Amino acid sequence: MVAEKIDGKEVALKVRTRIHEEVKKFQAVHKNFNPYLTIIQVGDRQDSSTYVRMKLKAAQEAGIECKIIKLPEEITEFELLTQIRHLNEDVNVDGILVQLPLPEHINEGKITSEVDANKDVDGLGPANVGELYKKGGNARFLPCTPKGVMTLLSEYNVQVSGSNAVVLGRSDIVGKPMSQLLNQANATVTSLHSRSSPEQLQFYLSKADIVVSAIGKSEFIKGDWIKEGAVVIDVGTNFISDSSRASGSRLVGDCDFKSVSEKASLLTPVPGGVGPMTVASLLDNVIIAAKANFETNFQTPKFTNP
Amino acid sequence: MVAEKIDGKEVALKVRTRIHEEVKKFQAVHKNFNPYLTIIQVGDRQDSSTYVRMKLKAAQEAGIECKIIKLPEEITEFELLTQIRHLNEDVNVDGILVQLPLPEHINEGKITSEVDANKDVDGLGPANVGELYKKGGNARFLPCTPKGVMTLLSEYNVQVSGSNAVVLGRSDIVGKPMSQLLNQANATVTSLHSRSSPEQLQFYLSKADIVVSAIGKSEFIKGDWIKEGAVVIDVGTNFISDSSRASGSRLVGDCDFKSVSEKASLLTPVPGGVGPMTVASLLDNVIIAAKANFETNFQTPKFTNP
Ligand SMILES: NC(=O)C1=CN([C@@H]2O[C@H](COP(=O)(O)OP(=O)(O)OC[C@H]3O[C@@H](n4cnc5c(N)ncnc54)[C@H](OP(=O)(O)O)[C@@H]3O)[C@@H](O)[C@H]2O)C=CC1
Ligand SMILES: NC(=O)C1=CN([C@@H]2O[C@H](COP(=O)(O)OP(=O)(O)OC[C@H]3O[C@@H](n4cnc5c(N)ncnc54)[C@H](OP(=O)(O)O)[C@@H]3O)[C@@H](O)[C@H]2O)C=CC1
Repeated sequence: MVAEKIDGKEVALKVRTRIHEEVKKFQAVHKNFNPYLTIIQVGDRQDSSTYVRMKLKAAQEAGIECKIIKLPEEITEFELLTQIRHLNEDVNVDGILVQLPLPEHINEGKITSEVDANKDVDGLGPANVGELYKKGGNARFLPCTPKGVMTLLSEYNVQVSGSNAVVLGRSDIVGKPMSQLLNQANATVTSLHSRSSPEQLQFYLSKADIVVSAIGKSEFIKGDWIKEGAVVIDVGTNFISDSSRASGSRLVGDCDFKSVSEKASLLTPVPGGVGPMTVASLLDNVIIAAKANFETNFQTPKFTNP
Repeated sequence: MVAEKIDGKEVALKVRTRIHEEVKKFQAVHKNFNPYLTIIQVGDRQDSSTYVRMKLKAAQEAGIECKIIKLPEEITEFELLTQIRHLNEDVNVDGILVQLPLPEHINEGKITSEVDANKDVDGLGPANVGELYKKGGNARFLPCTPKGVMTLLSEYNVQVSGSNAVVLGRSDIVGKPMSQLLNQANATVTSLHSRSSPEQLQFYLSKADIVVSAIGKSEFIKGDWIKEGAVVIDVGTNFISDSSRASGSRLVGDCDFKSVSEKASLLTPVPGGVGPMTVASLLDNVIIAAKANFETNFQTPKFTNP
C-alpha cells in the first residue's frame, strides 16, 4: 500500500476561507465587529518567531487584526502576569495567545491559567481544560492542534468511532487533549509516552487504525511498526541537519516518512500536514471569542428605553 | 494461580485511623478546628441513602461533623443551586458533597460546577478537573474512588509505572480520572467504553497487567479474558437477584469473581474492596478542605498590631 498524502494546506485554506467569509458577513451587519488577537512572545527563539509570524499573516488574511507584543527574555513572571491582566481587562482584545515555550524561570501553568477564560484561544486555562474533560462538557476553545487533527480526520472521512487509536505523547497542548477528543469520538484510545517501553510501543501500534504522534523525535516511527492501512497523523516538527540545503537543515516529522507511507493508507506530510491546521484552528477560536465578546460588550441592546 | 484478595476494608481502616489521629493532633493545638462536611441528597433512592449513611457514619467515627440535607425529588435546579450557594458562603462548612445521581430534570454538570472549588471534596468541579488534567497540575481534591484505587495499588506494592493498564468505563467520577491517575503514574493506559467492541475488549485485556473496571455490568468480565497474574480492581457495584438471601438480592462486581480469581494475582472483592476506599478518600479530602479553610478563615493571625 502507498499512503495518500493528507493535504493539510488545502484543508486549512478551506477553513480559513470559511472564516474570512464569516467575518465579512458578520461585518456587513455589524460594522464595528473587529476580531482582534494579541500574541505575546517572550524572548526571541527562532522557532517561536517563525510560528508567531505565520499566525500573524494568517490572521490578517482572514480579516483578523493581530498585534504581537514582544517581551524580553528576562521579563519576570510578575511582569508577564501584569501584562496579561491588562489584556484581560481591555475590552477590545478578543483573544490572547501566549506563545510557548516560555523561558525556564517562568511557570507556564501559572501564565496560561491567568488568561481570561473568554479570551483563552489556545484553550489551555483551567476553565477550558475542565470543560474539555467533563462528560458533556462545553469547552469554548479546543486546543488548536488536536482540534485541527480532528478536522483533518473528518475531512478525509476517517471512521474514528470503533477504531483502535494510539496517541504518542501526553502534553497539555497536543497529546492529552488529542486522546480526549478521540475518546469522545468513540475511538478506543491508548496513550503512549516516554515511559512506555519499545515493546509496548510496537504492541499498540501494530493494532492501531489511527496513530497520532506528537513526541518531537525525528523519524522515530518506522513503517514496520504500523498496521497495514493505518491512518497516520504526524504532529512532530523536528529540524535535522541536511548539508544539501542552503539553510543546512530540514524539517521532518516523528515518522520515517518513506517506510511509513508504504504501510499507511493516509499520512500527513511534514511540513504541510498538521502545522497549517493548527493555525486555522487558532483563527477559528479567535472568531468564536470575538463573536461572544461582541455580543456581550458591543452589541446595541435590542430594547432600549426611549 | 489463585488471586490474593485485596482487603479494602483493612486499608480503609488504616486511612481512617490516620485521619482520626490527624484531626485529634490538630485539635490539640487549635481547639476551634472542627472539620465539617455537608452532604446533599436529592430524593430518596435506596442506594443513595445507603451510601450517604455510610459516609455519615465514617465521618463521625473520624471526628468529622457531618450534616445531611435531604431535599425532595421535585426540587428545581434553581432551588438546588441556591442551596449550594448558601453552603458556599457559610464559612463553617468545609466540604460539600452532592450525592449523585440527581433526578433527570436536574443538570448534574451544572450542580457539581456550582460547588465552591475550595469545598469541592468530590473533585468534580471545573477547577479541580482542570488541575487534574493539566501537566504538573495541582488538584486539591482527587475524585474519591480513583484516589482510593491508587491507595490500594500502592498499599499492595503494585508496580504501576511501565505497566499496561486497562480502564473500563470513562465516567467523570470513576473511569476518566482513573485513567488519568494511572497515566500520571506512568502506566500505558487504554480506555475502554461501551463503544469498544468485544474483540477490542479482549485484545486489550489479554495484555493488561492492571485492570480497573467501572462499568456497572454484573459479572461481565470473565477469567479467560484476563492475563495470568494481572491485578484486577473491580469498582462495579451491582445488585443481582438471589433467592437464597433474605433480601432476595446480592451485591456483585463487574467481574465474574470465581473465574477471574483463578487468573489474577490480586483482586478486590465486592463488597469489601473499592467501596470502603471511596469513603476513606472522601474523609481525606474533607480534612484537606478543613485545614485549608481553617488557615484562611479561622487561624489567629501570626502578627497583629498591638
Ligand atoms: N504541527 C504543529 O502545529 C505543532 C507541532 N508540535 C510538535 O509536536 C511535537 C510534540 O510537541 P509537544 O506536545 O509540545 O511536546 P512535549 O515535549 O511537551 O511532549 C512530548 C511528549 O512526547 C512523549 N515522548 C517523548 N519521547 C517519547 C517516545 N520515545 N515514545 C513515546 N512518547 C514519547 C513525552 O512523554 P513524557 O510525558 O513521559 O515526557 C511527552 O508526553 C514537537 O515536535 C512539536 O514541535 C507541537 C505543537 C504544534
Ligand atoms: N465502589 C465504589 O465506591 C463506587 C462504585 N461505583 C460503581 O461503579 C460502576 C460505574 O460507575 P459510574 O462510573 O458512575 O457509571 P456510569 O454509568 O457513569 O459509567 C459507566 C461507564 O461504563 C462504560 N460501559 C458500559 N458498558 C460497557 C461495556 N460493556 N464495556 C466497556 N465499558 C462499558 C460506559 O461507556 P459509555 O461512556 O460509552 O457510555 C460508561 O463510560 C457502577 O457499578 C457503580 O455503582 C461507582 C462509584 C463508586
